[in-house]
Amino acid sequence: MKHRIITVSREFGSGGRTIAKEVAEKLHIPCYDQELIEKVAEESGFAKEYIAEHGEHTGNWLTNAFAAAASYYGPIGRDFVWMAQRKVILELAEKHPCVIVGRCADFILRDRADLLKVFIHADPAFRADRIVRVYGEREDSPEKRIRDKDKRRMAYYRYYTDIDWGVAKNYDICLDSGTIGIDRCADIIFSLY
Amino acid sequence: MKHRIITVSREFGSGGRTIAKEVAEKLHIPCYDQELIEKVAEESGFAKEYIAEHGEHTGNWLTNAFAAAASYYGPIGRDFVWMAQRKVILELAEKHPCVIVGRCADFILRDRADLLKVFIHADPAFRADRIVRVYGEREDSPEKRIRDKDKRRMAYYRYYTDIDWGVAKNYDICLDSGTIGIDRCADIIFSLY
Repeated sequence: MKHRIITVSREFGSGGRTIAKEVAEKLHIPCYDQELIEKVAEESGFAKEYIAEHGEHTGNWLTNAFAAAASYYGPIGRDFVWMAQRKVILELAEKHPCVIVGRCADFILRDRADLLKVFIHADPAFRADRIVRVYGEREDSPEKRIRDKDKRRMAYYRYYTDIDWGVAKNYDICLDSGTIGIDRCADIIFSLY
Repeated sequence: MKHRIITVSREFGSGGRTIAKEVAEKLHIPCYDQELIEKVAEESGFAKEYIAEHGEHTGNWLTNAFAAAASYYGPIGRDFVWMAQRKVILELAEKHPCVIVGRCADFILRDRADLLKVFIHADPAFRADRIVRVYGEREDSPEKRIRDKDKRRMAYYRYYTDIDWGVAKNYDICLDSGTIGIDRCADIIFSLY
């Protein structure tokens, strides 16, 4: 099968974004991650920071409490972000071959025959080390931060797709970036395109 | 990391066994599948047919009922098979590089740093077509047969390992043999060794 679109879902700190960028560079096609947030902000009128926070995570207890209160009166901000994000992702995939990082793009584009769905994961120790070293995270417990972020991404994914995140059968290929290596993961995905 | 042992877990009908054999041939190392059953039969004194049936599945309702009755008086046959199987797998991995198909080998060998854990899966339609075409299965509903076999493998895996079968984070690489192709899967695994 000929692939035109690659979606990269990833555990926090696994290097999924780096892999996505490497693959896109090798293929000379755009990689949408930060750029996607900007486009969704434009489309929805929400601030970029809001999209970054609510476009693939459930909120923390405080924003959840506000959301619960707001949803009593009608659709909440997160649902508007989901709809705007969905529209932008569908349009981008229609426009040209590209790599899209996270944001349930694998689910949104699931009916396309030219889609390659990738999931990147790694051992928590590898990821904790990486978020300190690469992202310069300074929290006391990077392990706790990883657990929290994964949990919120997983809950968001489950809420909007009704599918379990990180279950092999939902992807064409899943790779452990810790044992296989980030560059090697990018090579394998590139070779499948 | 240098890999010496490859374990291939697979959904029924996904071609995991064929992929394992292809990889082993390319690497000139043995592939243990049917041969493993024979070794476990020798080790345990149970018949090969019993090992084939109880070495990676829970039973059907009838064998489960017998097992429940037997377990009232002490460890049941399945547990003896598990212990014999575990011993054989540990010995084989110690002896020489090899590919091992199924039988919770990924869990049994999880502490080895030279282990490459593979999971092969595919769409039920691809697998249903394959078990009729390749295995010559003649049941009325190959889809039902697939569901049943997967369910029993999954339950067996869960019972002995306390880990969920088919969840990406438990493997180094998971591949959809339906979308990627059986030969291409073998190539990728070979390239990782």
